[in-house]
Formats: sequence, C-alpha cells, structure tokens
Amino acid sequence: MSASDVRAVTASSPAHQLEHAFSETERAAVYKAIYGRRDVRGQFLPDPIPDDVLARLLLAAHHAPSVGFMQPWSFIIVRDPSVKARVHAAFRTANAEAAELFDGERGATYRRLKLEGILEAPVGICVTCDRDRAGPVVVGRTHIRTMDLYSSVCAVENLWLAARAEGLGVGWVSIFHEAHLRDALGIPERIVPVAYLCVGRVIHFFARPELETAGWRPRLDLASLVAFDGWERRSDSDPLLPLLREP
Amino acid sequence: MSASDVRAVTASSPAHQLEHAFSETERAAVYKAIYGRRDVRGQFLPDPIPDDVLARLLLAAHHAPSVGFMQPWSFIIVRDPSVKARVHAAFRTANAEAAELFDGERGATYRRLKLEGILEAPVGICVTCDRDRAGPVVVGRTHIRTMDLYSSVCAVENLWLAARAEGLGVGWVSIFHEAHLRDALGIPERIVPVAYLCVGRVIHFFARPELETAGWRPRLDLASLVAFDGWERRSDSDPLLPLLREP
Repeated sequence: MSASDVRAVTASSPAHQLEHAFSETERAAVYKAIYGRRDVRGQFLPDPIPDDVLARLLLAAHHAPSVGFMQPWSFIIVRDPSVKARVHAAFRTANAEAAELFDGERGATYRRLKLEGILEAPVGICVTCDRDRAGPVVVGRTHIRTMDLYSSVCAVENLWLAARAEGLGVGWVSIFHEAHLRDALGIPERIVPVAYLCVGRVIHFFARPELETAGWRPRLDLASLVAFDGWERRSDSDPLLPLLREP
Repeated sequence: MSASDVRAVTASSPAHQLEHAFSETERAAVYKAIYGRRDVRGQFLPDPIPDDVLARLLLAAHHAPSVGFMQPWSFIIVRDPSVKARVHAAFRTANAEAAELFDGERGATYRRLKLEGILEAPVGICVTCDRDRAGPVVVGRTHIRTMDLYSSVCAVENLWLAARAEGLGVGWVSIFHEAHLRDALGIPERIVPVAYLCVGRVIHFFARPELETAGWRPRLDLASLVAFDGWERRSDSDPLLPLLREP
C-alpha cells in the first residue's frame, strides 16, 4: 500500500485529526509565541487573572507530552499573600547564598538583577511531579528515570507559551532550597516541586532576554551547536548551517 | 507612577516588544499546536525534511528558556541510515528488557505497542545538555541542580510544537540505556543526551494519544490535579474548577 493509499484510507477516520495542516498565519503565530516568550521578573501588574484564562493555561499544561501518558503533574495555585510571603522568604534565603557564589564585579551585577516577581505577580503556580502516579513501572521510564520530571517540565513550557499568547508574563523562580519550597506549600517528601511560576499581566515584554541585555551572557551561535550523525561531527558545507540565523 | 503612565513611558522603547498582543486567531493557533501535538511512532513518511523547515525547528528549540541564559543544548542531526541502525539496536536491547517488567496481559499489550520510528523517520535529532557550558556557577542553578536539564527539555517542547505547526510529527524515544545511546552517537561522558527525537512528515496525526486510545491509561481529570495555596488544599466551590474541562 503506498503512502497516498494509506492517506485515502485513513482520512475519513474519526481517530485522526481532520485539520492536519496549519495555515501560514497559524504557523507564524506559533513562532510568535516561541520568539516572544520571556522570563518575566519585574513587569507584573496586579490585575487578577480571569478564571477562564487561568483555566486555559492549566489545560495547555495538562496537554503536554508525558512519558507513558503518566500525567505526573499537579498544580498549586497561589493567590494568598501570606503563602506568597513564605515562598518569597524561601527565595530570599537561597538568593543571599547564591550572591556569595559570584565574585567581584560579577557578584555586584548579580545583586542588581531582579530575579523574581513572587509578591507582585497576582498568581503563583507550583508545577509538581508525582513520581508514583502510574505505579513503579512506566512505559518509557524503564531506563531513563528522569523522564517523569521532564514531562512536568513540558507542562511548564506549554503553560508558558499559552500565557504568552494570552498576553500574560511568566517567570520561573528556581532559587530555592527544595525543602524550603516544600515547607512553604506543604508539599510532601514524595512529590517533587519542579517549578514555581509567577504569572500575571505585564507592563511590557522585553524584546530580548534580560540576561542578554544586561551583558551577562550572549545568545550563542546556533550553527556552532549543530552536528551531523555524531557528537561534534561538523560539516561546514552542509546547506542547513547558513539557515540557522535569527529570523 | 501608575501602570498606564509606565506604559506610556515604555511603549516607544526599542527594548520592548511593540507587538505585545496576540489576535484571537493567533491565540487559537497556539492552542491548536498544543492540543494537536502527538507523540508519533508509526506514521512517518520517508520524505526528507527541507533544510529551511529543519532550520526553523532548531531555531525554535534555541529560543527556549534556559536557566541563567545558559543555552546548554546541542543538536545532533541523524540522517545516516547506519547511525540510525545503531540507535535502533540500542532501543531494541532496552525494549526487550522493558517488556519483561510488565506482567501477563499488560506485558502482551506492551509488546504490541509501536514505541518508536527510529528507522522510518527521515531525521533523528538528539538534544543534549552540556552541564558545564556556562561554568560551575550558573544564575538560577545554584540550588536546584537539574535546572540545566530542564532547559534542554524546554527546547524539546519548543521544537515539538514548531514541528506540529509545520505539519511534521515528532516522537520522543526514551527506552535506551543512556550509555548505549552515547555510544551510538559518540557522545562523551560529560554530556547528557536528554532526548532522541524522530522527526518527519506523517500520514496523519491521531486525534488522541495512542496510549489513551489503546486503553493503557485514561486522560486524568484536571480538576483533581489542582489545589489552592497549598498541597491538596481543595476548594470545591472555587469557580476555576468547572472551567477545567477539555475544550
């Protein structure tokens, strides 16, 4: 059976997506979200997030890929200022320790960076991973044990891109002792808090990542990160390479 | 200064995105990619991926969020059939072991599942993580050491959604001994192979995840996964909950 025969046979089945293709406009919109997404720390507006919008973000996260269809994520919605204050205290402790790890000028720059919007963002969302959600043996997790954590990370990225399309900023705060974040939110030992996200309307999105603008690190040249058929097997004449420039 | 004053001050700055908002059509397109994305194993067509399309997928991955703007990822493009054969051999070894872990009926079902398209997909992409790319101390990775791996996972999800918008299927193969995948691709010890992706045109996309259709696991009820201001702090009357239904 040729591929076009298969196509004819399967096109009418309800098991298959009928709207297979994206229009040029739809495709561009997906790239607009990907390129326009920013880690937001300092531009949050206090406006509450309407429930229908928040629901769409969570549904987008829930439709992330997950190993063995495990769906290991849960979502803690943080709106109570006293809970935010506990999370912020956990951040402050860790951030003071972090600042000590950067020497001299780098340390001074680090202390000037605004790294989170825990108190200002109207909503915090903690995305977790329950490693036992589907029992001990999970399809696709038999050999790489971290695949369940990676599934929760995919949920974070889905939520982040959906938020960008909704005009909402998201900032991922990772400067915590995991135990302190657990304590702040009452998360038991068996559950991994994968991400704490600050979510809300923003004054504006920056055109470029803040760490790039601040001169902390440049955007790397993508062509230097691509190899062919083996680690660091470069092929300088490959016609793909000149196409790997920023659009 | 009120929020609207701030908006007036900043709107003309080139440091800010001028096209802040998404139209209704653009927003719907982002959700179409999120809901329509599938883990593709068995519907690949052999057609090569045009270089301009492959470049767009890699650029989308390269614009993922990364901790401390670390950009820890590299991409190995696999097109050589002999390399694919080595990767497939690594899969076969691990998959035979995996099948032994499921008992009785479950084991029989497992053996019938098609879990990868390594040989059929025209392109494989291994997404890696170089944990030393930005030196030992990285902003945001000081306390949660896995944040760099999570950045590479965000690159995978960006690539996956971009591929869906391009009409390309992606399947993430995770049934490998990490050492065998390293050997197949010549990846050194210090680099983590985070994902091996099969990428290509497809006959069709399924309407639902294959493991759901096969009765392996159902889609979980999202409302049961959402809590408020603390782990498992339910609030049955919260107006968010009735909105957490499939669209």
